[in-house]
Amino acid sequence: MRNSALGYINGFAVTPPGRYYDKGYRELFAEVALKALEAAGNPDIKAIYVASALSELTGEQLAIGNVLRDYAGLRNIPSIRIENGDGSGGFAIMTALNHLASAGNGCMLVVGVDKPHEVISLKQNKYASYLLDSDYEAYFGATPVALAAIMAKQYMKSYEYKYEDLATWAIKMHERGARNPYAYFKRVAKLKDVLDSELVADPLRLYDVSPFVDGAAALVLCSKPNPNDLAIGVINYGFGASNSYFASRNDYTVLSSVVEAAKAVGPLENFNGVVSVHDTYSIFGVLALEALGLCKRGSALRLLNEGYFDQGGRVMVNLDGGLKAVGNSMGASGVYQMVGVVMQLRGDKPFNGLNAESAMVEDMVGVDQESVVFTLRVVK
Amino acid sequence: MRNSALGYINGFAVTPPGRYYDKGYRELFAEVALKALEAAGNPDIKAIYVASALSELTGEQLAIGNVLRDYAGLRNIPSIRIENGDGSGGFAIMTALNHLASAGNGCMLVVGVDKPHEVISLKQNKYASYLLDSDYEAYFGATPVALAAIMAKQYMKSYEYKYEDLATWAIKMHERGARNPYAYFKRVAKLKDVLDSELVADPLRLYDVSPFVDGAAALVLCSKPNPNDLAIGVINYGFGASNSYFASRNDYTVLSSVVEAAKAVGPLENFNGVVSVHDTYSIFGVLALEALGLCKRGSALRLLNEGYFDQGGRVMVNLDGGLKAVGNSMGASGVYQMVGVVMQLRGDKPFNGLNAESAMVEDMVGVDQESVVFTLRVVK
Repeated sequence: MRNSALGYINGFAVTPPGRYYDKGYRELFAEVALKALEAAGNPDIKAIYVASALSELTGEQLAIGNVLRDYAGLRNIPSIRIENGDGSGGFAIMTALNHLASAGNGCMLVVGVDKPHEVISLKQNKYASYLLDSDYEAYFGATPVALAAIMAKQYMKSYEYKYEDLATWAIKMHERGARNPYAYFKRVAKLKDVLDSELVADPLRLYDVSPFVDGAAALVLCSKPNPNDLAIGVINYGFGASNSYFASRNDYTVLSSVVEAAKAVGPLENFNGVVSVHDTYSIFGVLALEALGLCKRGSALRLLNEGYFDQGGRVMVNLDGGLKAVGNSMGASGVYQMVGVVMQLRGDKPFNGLNAESAMVEDMVGVDQESVVFTLRVVK
Repeated sequence: MRNSALGYINGFAVTPPGRYYDKGYRELFAEVALKALEAAGNPDIKAIYVASALSELTGEQLAIGNVLRDYAGLRNIPSIRIENGDGSGGFAIMTALNHLASAGNGCMLVVGVDKPHEVISLKQNKYASYLLDSDYEAYFGATPVALAAIMAKQYMKSYEYKYEDLATWAIKMHERGARNPYAYFKRVAKLKDVLDSELVADPLRLYDVSPFVDGAAALVLCSKPNPNDLAIGVINYGFGASNSYFASRNDYTVLSSVVEAAKAVGPLENFNGVVSVHDTYSIFGVLALEALGLCKRGSALRLLNEGYFDQGGRVMVNLDGGLKAVGNSMGASGVYQMVGVVMQLRGDKPFNGLNAESAMVEDMVGVDQESVVFTLRVVK
């Protein structure tokens, strides 16, 4: 074990993901920022990193950090906004860790916040298509889910899976969401529900798509652990990229950016603990497991169906229900993921008795454009 | 002198600021990124930091870095987009320096790129108002220039200046722009031109407002200097914030966020060399000089009029013509500023024979919301 972490998570908070017609960006931010700071013992904060993908599109706000901190009474603390699409959260955490390393000491506040439901669903989907290449992909009608569908089709064909195999992802995520007080979907889904649901982009059905949610999640990252709490350290991170332009890729059955990020973070074949993958669409969750090196290519869906990634196993995946059940809060999703694994490492409700000591988080931008992977550990 | 810099500027490039109806974000990006990399000897790049304020508003593109790098052939290099309004450039440089410190070695590419002229001026001004608090300021019709006007009025009243004193800023910037091949405005302006120009927000006239321009600027930041070139190091940075909400501020004659950033970077009273201030509006240029501690409060406009900040003095301000003459490329402006002082330190045309050894750059978000200040030095 490395005897020091890149940073410790000394406080955290999330809002239940939902549709907040009665709260704006600033109310959601204040709620989680102040709770996370209190949990961390209200340390001095050097900077606030705000992860948001949609603040100017749905909130008409640029440089949103300064408005948010001001509303929360966190005046005079400079803010930096990171916009890396639905991977903003992960990259904001990475950027804050770099700042901590550069400063040598202190604490940073990282908050992911987004409000897709400020606009109607037609616009939500339009804005989501901005994640693709606007001139060469989105302009011609491509959407992230359509490209994910091509990947799913190719994967199922290459490795001889039926759609029923893929449906297991949604079923398991709903089952876990039903136990998680912070999930958006809290209803168990049966195979029939999945099979009967609307076809969104063949072969992906409604249940394969994470729902857009409004929400905010916060972390206080410090160079030293909170003396009054369990020490959870971010041990390492790695990031990677693939070719952005979808048509130029050679292989649609692999998430290359995740492969690169996993390589950079170190060998992960022997990893054991809890893992959070960015399952914007069910196929991305499956492919992430292979890209992380947690199983052989083509085997993830079989292993998932066999229960290999369930609670009690060596590698436990998305015990909080993933984006599928927790919801896709766009720029905030990576911070929600991080909070999810922190709660699992702590054994907070509903993860009591889990006794995991290591965790991994994979966050991805759009359709395999960039990814960042973190490893975490309970530091004793 | 510190014997090591936070990072060295091993390559740089800018596009002449203008109205590029024939080039998109990606063409502008590729032009400067490839030139800057070539100048730096084409080193391996760990990450690309893209500063852009308007990419989703005028370019319908989220997570724009991956599309840009892909187009430029810089595949597989992860990108992170920083959006801190018109201060995006400065904060992207700071974030890249932190990454360099965290990595311990290597190089980062920082590119600022924005295209306000993808949309008509009515929308440009609407989007610029997103820099203010959208719910409590912009919604009620406030614009950045209107708030700058209040600050100008208060400053002129407090320290007994006439508008003719303030007009000197525009006159000097136009004079310098006329010599700078990379300026947008290359025409000398006389006092009469300024006085006869349209009143934008009393007392600020058209000549007090930096023009929106499309443009891109790039820097290659490395942990070691380029062995084949003059070593220019970023020695230190500081950042700061003020209260975001304009109506809650006690004093409209000071840029508090710049004061904080300057304090963090160290005592600057004895600084000598070239300085670049973020003169979105002429009054911000004047107030920045005081906030940086380069002269006493209330004295900057008098000293400016006396020629104190001209070429040949101890503190030489905006020798490239500032945002007033170079143009306001929003998210790219801070990177343009940095390139400007690097050219001055190198004595590149039109700065031959300047022999400055130190430089300072001040970049600000909106109306005194957050600021970052860098010091640079020729390292021998």
